[in-house]
Amino acid sequence: MTQHSASPVHPFRLLLGAGPSNVHPRVLQAMTAPLLGHLDPHFLSVMDETRGLLRHVFQTENAVTLPISGTGTAGMEASMVNILEPGDACVVAVNGYFGQRLSEIAERSGANVVQVPHETGKPADPDRVRDAVVKAGNVKAVGVVHAETSTGAGTPLKDIADVAHEAGALLVVDAVTSLGGVELRVDEWGVDVCYSCTQKCVGAPPGLAPLTLSPRAMDALQSRKSKVQSFYLDLTELSSYWDRRAYHHTAPISMIFALREALRLIAEEGLEARWERHERNASAFRAGLTAMGLDVVADAEARLPSLTAILSPDGVDEAQARRHLLDRHGIEVSGGLGPLAGKAWRVGLMGHNSTRANVLTSLGALEDALGEQGYETQAGAGVAAAQRAYLGAD
Amino acid sequence: MTQHSASPVHPFRLLLGAGPSNVHPRVLQAMTAPLLGHLDPHFLSVMDETRGLLRHVFQTENAVTLPISGTGTAGMEASMVNILEPGDACVVAVNGYFGQRLSEIAERSGANVVQVPHETGKPADPDRVRDAVVKAGNVKAVGVVHAETSTGAGTPLKDIADVAHEAGALLVVDAVTSLGGVELRVDEWGVDVCYSCTQKCVGAPPGLAPLTLSPRAMDALQSRKSKVQSFYLDLTELSSYWDRRAYHHTAPISMIFALREALRLIAEEGLEARWERHERNASAFRAGLTAMGLDVVADAEARLPSLTAILSPDGVDEAQARRHLLDRHGIEVSGGLGPLAGKAWRVGLMGHNSTRANVLTSLGALEDALGEQGYETQAGAGVAAAQRAYLGAD
Repeated sequence: MTQHSASPVHPFRLLLGAGPSNVHPRVLQAMTAPLLGHLDPHFLSVMDETRGLLRHVFQTENAVTLPISGTGTAGMEASMVNILEPGDACVVAVNGYFGQRLSEIAERSGANVVQVPHETGKPADPDRVRDAVVKAGNVKAVGVVHAETSTGAGTPLKDIADVAHEAGALLVVDAVTSLGGVELRVDEWGVDVCYSCTQKCVGAPPGLAPLTLSPRAMDALQSRKSKVQSFYLDLTELSSYWDRRAYHHTAPISMIFALREALRLIAEEGLEARWERHERNASAFRAGLTAMGLDVVADAEARLPSLTAILSPDGVDEAQARRHLLDRHGIEVSGGLGPLAGKAWRVGLMGHNSTRANVLTSLGALEDALGEQGYETQAGAGVAAAQRAYLGAD
Repeated sequence: MTQHSASPVHPFRLLLGAGPSNVHPRVLQAMTAPLLGHLDPHFLSVMDETRGLLRHVFQTENAVTLPISGTGTAGMEASMVNILEPGDACVVAVNGYFGQRLSEIAERSGANVVQVPHETGKPADPDRVRDAVVKAGNVKAVGVVHAETSTGAGTPLKDIADVAHEAGALLVVDAVTSLGGVELRVDEWGVDVCYSCTQKCVGAPPGLAPLTLSPRAMDALQSRKSKVQSFYLDLTELSSYWDRRAYHHTAPISMIFALREALRLIAEEGLEARWERHERNASAFRAGLTAMGLDVVADAEARLPSLTAILSPDGVDEAQARRHLLDRHGIEVSGGLGPLAGKAWRVGLMGHNSTRANVLTSLGALEDALGEQGYETQAGAGVAAAQRAYLGAD
């Protein structure tokens, strides 16, 4: 080992897209802890603490609650491949890009998937899901996205859980853009399988997928006729490691240190206070958008506290505006996905980044980016409206 | 956000087991860099640099060379599920626990798997693999473990590559305990699919699985009749992200910062110098073991530079010795796996941890742990023999 050159430093970005979001310095610091072995007694206590904190953030008592060693999409895949066997019927409410992905992954598990399509920006409709479930018959699982990252629409889960349970099916919920920032009560609402990611409202870097499985879901897993097609994501094996320390794969130690620290920050803040913080900031942000004459994709009653998809106005090039925000303001926002590609921005105010300062900063920067393309708003109107919303709300 | 309590600090461990190993401080430091978006121009340049450095460490020109967003087992699964389709024939040389796992994962891909069993501690035998390939007929892939982490035996790859290619099959190689520490030449030796992990000789924390695919393997992937059963590990999708920046999943940003830094350290040291360092330290370590009257599991001509499995002598409780090493010396070594459970220790001298200081420290600690159970060696004999080996070798 010879020269030890320093790494070039990249610019600081304010990450206000669909994730990753910036994280608290304590979370970055946690990853510098010296490594431990995955069976070290000290690491086992880190696992126990992490699992307890995950149960809190999911609002569940589920024994099987753990982080999958992959990103949110790995959590989605783990949920489907463990529950579904070839030939099983599965109904998926598709109200955006990630509902579509959930359906695709269920199909690759060998299931017969019935999609329930929805218009862009709408929440999933329990009545239409019920019709599909009744028509399909003998449905093993119903899949729904709690917070659709592509449109910013949230779906209430209680009614859809009832639909699934009336039919004897399991409810699988994507909580990628809700966990830790949007009200979510796994046990009270009757969610059977719920997965998320770490880089959005949870407040850690990307790389893990928190997941929880109800006892009913565990029964379905244990009474499978065929092996789970993925060895890596086999929850029987993974829960053996988390329960009985049986070796399965080497846990991503540093990422678990980061997740634990992020979860501790949530517990310190208080989960309900955190949901309220996300709601307060999103509400002020939307007030600013309205004052600037901008339209939001999601239906008024379905707008998420974590992520807002904004329609780019006629005559404005959305990609050029994003480049302007990145180059001139150091702010990342995301473009549209699927049918919204080229037509929308997605702004996330998630976890550590859901702050009043970021609301005001992003509205000001957006005004500048739009003005650069000749879309004029009354100077400072967005920021002023957001300020008024805070004064009214505080 | 209220009180910001500091995390309790866990003890420093010298990680001399089967991995994770300790990493260079620059690698831990790299993870504290502020997050970037997975499509940020600066992150794209990090990806390009990482991919170039991965090609160097694999000794390949393969276009498809990237880190899978999961641990080594995810790399194993990605290799098999992308190459194999239901009904394909696959031959796996099983000379330890991880050959067995490779076979299990191939089976879960729907392939018809023929195992070629070997005695514990032996390298895979090309002649026996050829017999199985010829007998099976129309074999799609031959799987072999380059460095068996359960026994410490290494298998030369060139002859097995010839066996696979004579039959028109692809060679899939597990390089989990060799990449970055043991001579490996993917292109020159004709390896078609090769995967590894980050937490052993590569010198980063666990969480990623470097993987490379030859053009022949890419052809096989592109001419599949069925979809890859895993969406998360679908290499067509993953290579689109690494090549054309098409969104697939949010890359684990901080882990990729860590991997890049670890790969830079390899390039600074020089790959061949690093292989030689691993060989020199393992050789001195083995000289110390011999002087202490201890037997090694692997055949003499097959012993790995990265990991040594040591038979625990009669009358010595291997678990008690490991606890003594951990509690009194802060040193982690691993126990045996599979048929070696309760009968062996596995000592890794990998990456940043393959040093003369660690060889001498671990031999001294082992003498103490054995002495505590009444297994007496001539005082200091192991350390002295290792010192002599260094003097002879330097």
